[in-house]
Amino acid sequence: MQRLGIAAAALAGAVLSAMSPVLADDLRERANAVFKPLPSTVPAVKDNRITPEKIELGKALFFDPRLSASGVFSCNSCHNLATGGDDNLETSIGHGWQKGPRNAPTALNSVFNEAQFWDGRAEDLKAQAKGPIQAGVEMANTPQQVVTTLESMPQYVTWFKAAFPDEKEPVTFDNMAKAIEAFEATLLTPSPFDKFLNGDDLALTDVQKTGLGLFMDKGCAGCHSGINVGGMGYYPFGVQEKPGAEILPEGDKGRFTVTATADDQYVFRAAPLRNVAVTAPYFHSGKVWDLRQAVAIMSTSQLGTELTATEIDAIVEFLHGLTGDVPRIEYPVLPAETATTPRPTSEILKK
Amino acid sequence: MQRLGIAAAALAGAVLSAMSPVLADDLRERANAVFKPLPSTVPAVKDNRITPEKIELGKALFFDPRLSASGVFSCNSCHNLATGGDDNLETSIGHGWQKGPRNAPTALNSVFNEAQFWDGRAEDLKAQAKGPIQAGVEMANTPQQVVTTLESMPQYVTWFKAAFPDEKEPVTFDNMAKAIEAFEATLLTPSPFDKFLNGDDLALTDVQKTGLGLFMDKGCAGCHSGINVGGMGYYPFGVQEKPGAEILPEGDKGRFTVTATADDQYVFRAAPLRNVAVTAPYFHSGKVWDLRQAVAIMSTSQLGTELTATEIDAIVEFLHGLTGDVPRIEYPVLPAETATTPRPTSEILKK
Repeated sequence: MQRLGIAAAALAGAVLSAMSPVLADDLRERANAVFKPLPSTVPAVKDNRITPEKIELGKALFFDPRLSASGVFSCNSCHNLATGGDDNLETSIGHGWQKGPRNAPTALNSVFNEAQFWDGRAEDLKAQAKGPIQAGVEMANTPQQVVTTLESMPQYVTWFKAAFPDEKEPVTFDNMAKAIEAFEATLLTPSPFDKFLNGDDLALTDVQKTGLGLFMDKGCAGCHSGINVGGMGYYPFGVQEKPGAEILPEGDKGRFTVTATADDQYVFRAAPLRNVAVTAPYFHSGKVWDLRQAVAIMSTSQLGTELTATEIDAIVEFLHGLTGDVPRIEYPVLPAETATTPRPTSEILKK
Repeated sequence: MQRLGIAAAALAGAVLSAMSPVLADDLRERANAVFKPLPSTVPAVKDNRITPEKIELGKALFFDPRLSASGVFSCNSCHNLATGGDDNLETSIGHGWQKGPRNAPTALNSVFNEAQFWDGRAEDLKAQAKGPIQAGVEMANTPQQVVTTLESMPQYVTWFKAAFPDEKEPVTFDNMAKAIEAFEATLLTPSPFDKFLNGDDLALTDVQKTGLGLFMDKGCAGCHSGINVGGMGYYPFGVQEKPGAEILPEGDKGRFTVTATADDQYVFRAAPLRNVAVTAPYFHSGKVWDLRQAVAIMSTSQLGTELTATEIDAIVEFLHGLTGDVPRIEYPVLPAETATTPRPTSEILKK
């Protein structure tokens, strides 16, 4: 782990080692006004009652590479639950070795984002799930082909019936997406930060508490707030000072593509920061690998502030406190193909 | 599942529905002389004492896409434990969307194969594990780069120390392979066939027992015997009648590449048949998707026998009885990259 340098840690520690319970209570009170700890149960989602059967089906679908035309990629390929819920690539590799346009965000805690994708173009996770499956550079599949694939395997049909007991023909592309959303809603990762918000003074180190204070005082929390420490609201990248094209490529105009509003040029959803320390590289372009550098860029581009190295170190330490425990997931055993299962194809269709 | 047609099942069932315990005992005795049930514990492997620490490390490595140059492929990509321990592709897709030359065999129960790969060129699983990681069309990595990657993550260093406690510098390419072998040695899938061999008359249906009898009487068990119902010994594909080039491509001379012995042209290791019903497509070329067709081809090409449709159906039913229970595997949480972790590259190096 890239943590705080020893000298900086000693310095910050000296300043704060005697932080009293009273001070911690103050900080907690301020933090609880801005952030929110994760709940202890799976949250409800709109138009999709979450049941154990739906979660189990969703887990199978999430890990099933046969949702892609090639049979190579599953949801988990780019949102790998073993590596922070993302793929740790600049941008993902998809069908035909094509590169996706933006860095894959983590699936962990994503149920709490206001909307999905960097530009918020999907209202929720069930809308999001349908995107990459159909994207030519990602899974390159079609809804019809997906349904044919799932219907060809009796075990899937049984699972869909159990997950959607009131429906006559439960194996649909929409229900696939709902099941995936139900599974994703279980991917909550309680962290030391949650413990602190819930009252445990010792869950964060003194340096992390300093970092949390700075995160609020310097203005980071102006955009990165709420339960996901971000994931809510849209902001121009470079509101104070536009970063260079190597970090903010000119061709990607962000939310402008969704709203066609001039003000939305280079506007992106504030990144949710839970597990940020384990989901490098950063930004929609995936061009920055060092969290320290990412924090420095944010402070100049968004806040117009030059943070000191010690301040950056403390904020980075705080961000490490957002790394949570991934729920235990038993790797699924998927149904076997049958004679009617469409064959995988590695061909790249011309547009 | 593609199982026995109803008419054929009724026919075979009528013939055999009254199979007496005595007959079942006879069949069991004959079968136990040819095959062997899976053991109840992880088998010992040569030069690699298996410990819980080694298994846990091996599991992490098996699922870690950072063993590949691109960061896209893990061992599990082509030997997917969710889909029978293979990728259900004709041949695997690897680095740069290149296609591998042969169908990926299942990792399940592979510890019991006499040697690894279709041509047996790796003595054991620890030798095998090093192959795909370095193959340009698969994971396209180098031993040095793998070690640098693993050493860059302190958690991996700790895990290697725990797995190889007597070694001063435990993070080596060889030890990586040993840990993967240790994990793979746990991938045993007890099946209805094992239950039958162990004395449970009802574990196989009457049709499956007929199929087992035919499998031995017709000569299939001549090559497909032992604990893995195959995986032992090398045989020419087409000893009686050479299949067409669409199934046995002329360019792939099999074990000849390993031994340079003329007799070894188009010679391959007999495929291990445990879980064969869930690991289509078949043969080293991966050209046959239907297990019924695969059995028919084997009977003409290897035995010079034309099996009846009913016989093929019964044998296929028996082969379904080799589908076992995959062990419960908790999906690992892998260490996060650090500043010194080599960056993934999707570039294809020219040879």
